[in-house]
Amino acid sequence: MKEPLHLFKIGGAILEDPEALEETLGFFSNLPGRKLLVHGGGRRANQMSRQLSIEPNMHEGRRITDSATLEVVVMVYAGLENKKVVALLQALNCNAIGLSGADGNVILAEKRPVKAIDYGYVGDVKKVNTQSIHTLLEAGLAPVFCAITHNGQGQLLNTNADTIAAELAIALAGQYQASLYYCFEKPGVMTDIDDVHSVIRYLDPELYTAYREQGIIAEGMIPKLDNAFRALKAGVASVHIGDRKSLALGRATQLVWTTEFPE
Amino acid sequence: MKEPLHLFKIGGAILEDPEALEETLGFFSNLPGRKLLVHGGGRRANQMSRQLSIEPNMHEGRRITDSATLEVVVMVYAGLENKKVVALLQALNCNAIGLSGADGNVILAEKRPVKAIDYGYVGDVKKVNTQSIHTLLEAGLAPVFCAITHNGQGQLLNTNADTIAAELAIALAGQYQASLYYCFEKPGVMTDIDDVHSVIRYLDPELYTAYREQGIIAEGMIPKLDNAFRALKAGVASVHIGDRKSLALGRATQLVWTTEFPE
Repeated sequence: MKEPLHLFKIGGAILEDPEALEETLGFFSNLPGRKLLVHGGGRRANQMSRQLSIEPNMHEGRRITDSATLEVVVMVYAGLENKKVVALLQALNCNAIGLSGADGNVILAEKRPVKAIDYGYVGDVKKVNTQSIHTLLEAGLAPVFCAITHNGQGQLLNTNADTIAAELAIALAGQYQASLYYCFEKPGVMTDIDDVHSVIRYLDPELYTAYREQGIIAEGMIPKLDNAFRALKAGVASVHIGDRKSLALGRATQLVWTTEFPE
Repeated sequence: MKEPLHLFKIGGAILEDPEALEETLGFFSNLPGRKLLVHGGGRRANQMSRQLSIEPNMHEGRRITDSATLEVVVMVYAGLENKKVVALLQALNCNAIGLSGADGNVILAEKRPVKAIDYGYVGDVKKVNTQSIHTLLEAGLAPVFCAITHNGQGQLLNTNADTIAAELAIALAGQYQASLYYCFEKPGVMTDIDDVHSVIRYLDPELYTAYREQGIIAEGMIPKLDNAFRALKAGVASVHIGDRKSLALGRATQLVWTTEFPE
């Protein structure tokens, strides 16, 4: 039987709410056994860009990462946010170690090819170096990943944090019984965004498709759920989506893989 | 016999000169066996402070680190500079892993006590966690330290990079035959700052005292040499000060400990 591993992704909004961050990191630090954390970016990068007079360059809601913007996200994600999380975890007796994808060569990415749009220094994950991560986990360390990767040729890249969490879970599912938690500001995937009691407790691909078609699941939830289902399909033992309370109480959304009958 | 360990400190000025940085990291990546790197801050933190309209607050040439300044140095040192160095080393096939003192709890510091001057969020090194560093080194990783530490209670602190290099060398000298290299923009400790041929090849405490009294060694070299001699006295096998070329050619300044005759 494989050893359990908890992979915990926290959204950017949590990073900017000191109380939510403290509670969430408290929950994470109490998880038993091997664990790792992935954190999103938060609004600090946007604020910092504005303060530095770097104009945000968006295309259909997605950020174009030019070289000035890349410097800002590296500073904020790998510097400010990552070290804040690590220092807070250390204060909770959780032996955290902060990583970008370049550190220990843990996540190799490639610059997204230029098609209709040049997204700039955005990286698509190519390879997760499970050996380095395994070494850290076995030493009792809790890796804390920011959403920065590299191409192995000296270039840092900006990568979506939900994707990083899914890719880590998929890569480590070979060695560990991997449970993936997406912790954000909502109690789960909801049928009514304004009703906290509308959390969908179990979601399978068929239901997901139906909810999408009805427009009940939309916008930012779609890439998150696409990543989540991809992880489940690829051998991740379980995927949960919710806030710190619903996850702690087991009332968050849990994804269920549809078992197809043999023909 | 203890295994050799190379500890390589690079000054901030090198970080801002792409050619010097590439050559220096090339030299570091070719050092055989276990090794680690410590990098200084460079002028980017000052530039960034100015861009963010944070007034530098200096006292007798030393920076007062208020909370806004701490955020800037964490962003620049632990984010921008540290990840730049790590990504470049990865491109040179050196499996670097970037660390602040909070990561793996490697360097615990305490906020400098307020006496006549409150230096703010400046940390004096209290304890180096050699076990974590040993684990990384034995896994074939090359730790890359920035000059940020923590107090174990969630507070990050700004610490002098020369001091960090000396403290790491002293702490690791118990397990390793530690060689400490201070790599900066000068070929060594010089008797005439304008004459590259005036490098002092060997410097012992008696000569150091004499040069200080004559004003030949002054200003920024004094804290660097105080750190260097402290490391040598505490069991570090050798200490070298120079630029990448003089260090590579063995023509940098080497410190020599004065052996006192038994009474």
